[in-house]
Amino acid sequence: MEPSSGSRGAGPAVMPVAAVLPAGGSGERLGGATPKQFCAVQGRPLVSYTVRAMERISWISNIIVVVSPENIETMKSIVEKYGHKRVMIVKGGITRHRSIFNGLKVFSENEFSNQLLQKPEVVIIHDAVRPFVEEDILSKVVIAAKEHGAAGAIRPLVSTVIASTADGCLDHSLERARYRASEMPQAFLFDIIYEAYQQCTNYDLDYGTECLHLALKYCKTNAKLVEGTADLWKVTYKRDLHAAESIIKDNLSQQVCVITDVKEAVAQVGFRLHESLKNQLKDKKYAIQETQQLADMLEKSNIPLLYPVVLISVHLDISENISFSIGMEELTRIKKFAREMKKKNILVYGLLIQDKDHLLLQDTVNSAAALIMALIKDRNAELIGQLLVA
Amino acid sequence: MEPSSGSRGAGPAVMPVAAVLPAGGSGERLGGATPKQFCAVQGRPLVSYTVRAMERISWISNIIVVVSPENIETMKSIVEKYGHKRVMIVKGGITRHRSIFNGLKVFSENEFSNQLLQKPEVVIIHDAVRPFVEEDILSKVVIAAKEHGAAGAIRPLVSTVIASTADGCLDHSLERARYRASEMPQAFLFDIIYEAYQQCTNYDLDYGTECLHLALKYCKTNAKLVEGTADLWKVTYKRDLHAAESIIKDNLSQQVCVITDVKEAVAQVGFRLHESLKNQLKDKKYAIQETQQLADMLEKSNIPLLYPVVLISVHLDISENISFSIGMEELTRIKKFAREMKKKNILVYGLLIQDKDHLLLQDTVNSAAALIMALIKDRNAELIGQLLVA
Repeated sequence: MEPSSGSRGAGPAVMPVAAVLPAGGSGERLGGATPKQFCAVQGRPLVSYTVRAMERISWISNIIVVVSPENIETMKSIVEKYGHKRVMIVKGGITRHRSIFNGLKVFSENEFSNQLLQKPEVVIIHDAVRPFVEEDILSKVVIAAKEHGAAGAIRPLVSTVIASTADGCLDHSLERARYRASEMPQAFLFDIIYEAYQQCTNYDLDYGTECLHLALKYCKTNAKLVEGTADLWKVTYKRDLHAAESIIKDNLSQQVCVITDVKEAVAQVGFRLHESLKNQLKDKKYAIQETQQLADMLEKSNIPLLYPVVLISVHLDISENISFSIGMEELTRIKKFAREMKKKNILVYGLLIQDKDHLLLQDTVNSAAALIMALIKDRNAELIGQLLVA
Repeated sequence: MEPSSGSRGAGPAVMPVAAVLPAGGSGERLGGATPKQFCAVQGRPLVSYTVRAMERISWISNIIVVVSPENIETMKSIVEKYGHKRVMIVKGGITRHRSIFNGLKVFSENEFSNQLLQKPEVVIIHDAVRPFVEEDILSKVVIAAKEHGAAGAIRPLVSTVIASTADGCLDHSLERARYRASEMPQAFLFDIIYEAYQQCTNYDLDYGTECLHLALKYCKTNAKLVEGTADLWKVTYKRDLHAAESIIKDNLSQQVCVITDVKEAVAQVGFRLHESLKNQLKDKKYAIQETQQLADMLEKSNIPLLYPVVLISVHLDISENISFSIGMEELTRIKKFAREMKKKNILVYGLLIQDKDHLLLQDTVNSAAALIMALIKDRNAELIGQLLVA
């Protein structure tokens, strides 16, 4: 259920590290009513993916999510629904810098938080709308921040940057190779960034965008710049949500298994499917009961389903009958069952494989594998409860 | 079949306008073997979308696509397959600027082209990997270029731009509001940009990236900057291909119709479906023959299918029988037929609607509409030939 495994113990030396995630943006560039950090990707708000990316790293002790006042309840319910741990929700300010400053205050100002958190040596600042951050870059910026006082991820510029004249004409263009885009995550010695925020002007707080700039201006700290990977990009426009969804689907589909009622319960898709089907599948029709058991198991395990789980009920038709027959009521029952399961974030599909002469044809097996992969990859909620034929 | 309709006659006054599309990039940032402009989106190379975006604008007389020598044959076959008109393919140089310069030469150097094209007053330069360019912005840059000599689309910066010191630390950050990202399309008076390319140094040709810069440096022309829309973005990374695919699918799904065998042959999805189904559908089983006729019609019309066409064969089961029965051979025949159709870029699906008491239930109709929308939107080639049940 996780695109990449969490870390246990490893990390940039033993020191308290916390993370502040500003999530107060209004998402106006996205062109939708919902701020982008709360937009659903595979049914789950984007911010939850980012929190999860932090949470799975054991050496991050606290995750401070800063949201605008009207979204505090939404954020609370997200934390509860997806079982996020080590998260504190903090009320944001009217600008990005004011929100980050509020996030930092929980470590040093009693009146701001009724449970004063342990002050970290290093604090990570990361956008809630950059969900694909990996441990490697987080570790790098933290280590660099410890040495230099501040550090931030950078990326090459995709477009040439230009300055315009007052009348909207080209004044000059910057030599692309000399400049970089400043991205997230960034990391700071807590005392440095906190000092910078305490010193900085209202103008900075209201119009500034760059934390590295504050550290330089108010603490004379030249941040270390760390080359990041392409997946650090910020979800800004609607197309970025599409891209995020595709990346998440791509990651997921590599890791989903087909669960059949065979003895070797978990057969990897595409690899073992052929043999498993050939040797072990029984003639089980429309295995609602088995699927229900699996769903109950999932529910009892109390693991929050972070992604839609795909259950494909594979039926092997070994009847000599050349005509396939199924009651409409049966089909309706399967669809109804699938709709119930969907409420639990479980997508149920049926797959019928014909084995007339008890000798599965390679074509049929290939077709079954292709259908299974397509269902798993697409996670199309509209097609639940359908009985496909390989 | 077209996301937005072409223009006929309208345009930025009567003057010869040509477009040069550099398409010589290697796509190294995409991380794939295929250069991004040749990557398939819904089965069709990206460059074909961009060519189409230019081609549908009647006031663009010639479209010069500049490709690296090894891709000339590929490009030729794309032009042929998708029926592109007014396109000339030109051999690129080893850098972007050298490729654009080659593209411009077809209008003025006899030895470069055996059919010297009419020199345009204004030339548009646009990236092959920005497929969503609209007539509005093309028109704006052309008009501005006529007045100012040069013009280019700009966008706000998404990230802060920073300069680094020699040892990889932050030197300074630019005030984001004062700068813009230079995007495409750009347009120039032909004589100005051609003069600039003739004058510029080898260093410019080898390391430069910005045409507006050349016009400024060699012709003292301060380009007019025109605010563009978000969809001008450049397909750069793999995620951008995902985003492009989603945008194309979104655009398409608004415009596809369900073709049934009813008298009013074309009923708009979701709008007329209910009434159409209720009043007019006949009991036609697995209408392979009708679907074949439609496919033949499409083929005879000689219109290149720019996007996969979705054909959903809707069957109404009005038998009193509570058990639905279908021969496996019938199902196999449908799948085989669908596979044949797919080679022609036609995706065939079946949809069974039960109407036991000759009184369609609203639930069934809603379910049918949802399935149809999902099939049309997804255009999932793996699910062709399946008989879904509403």
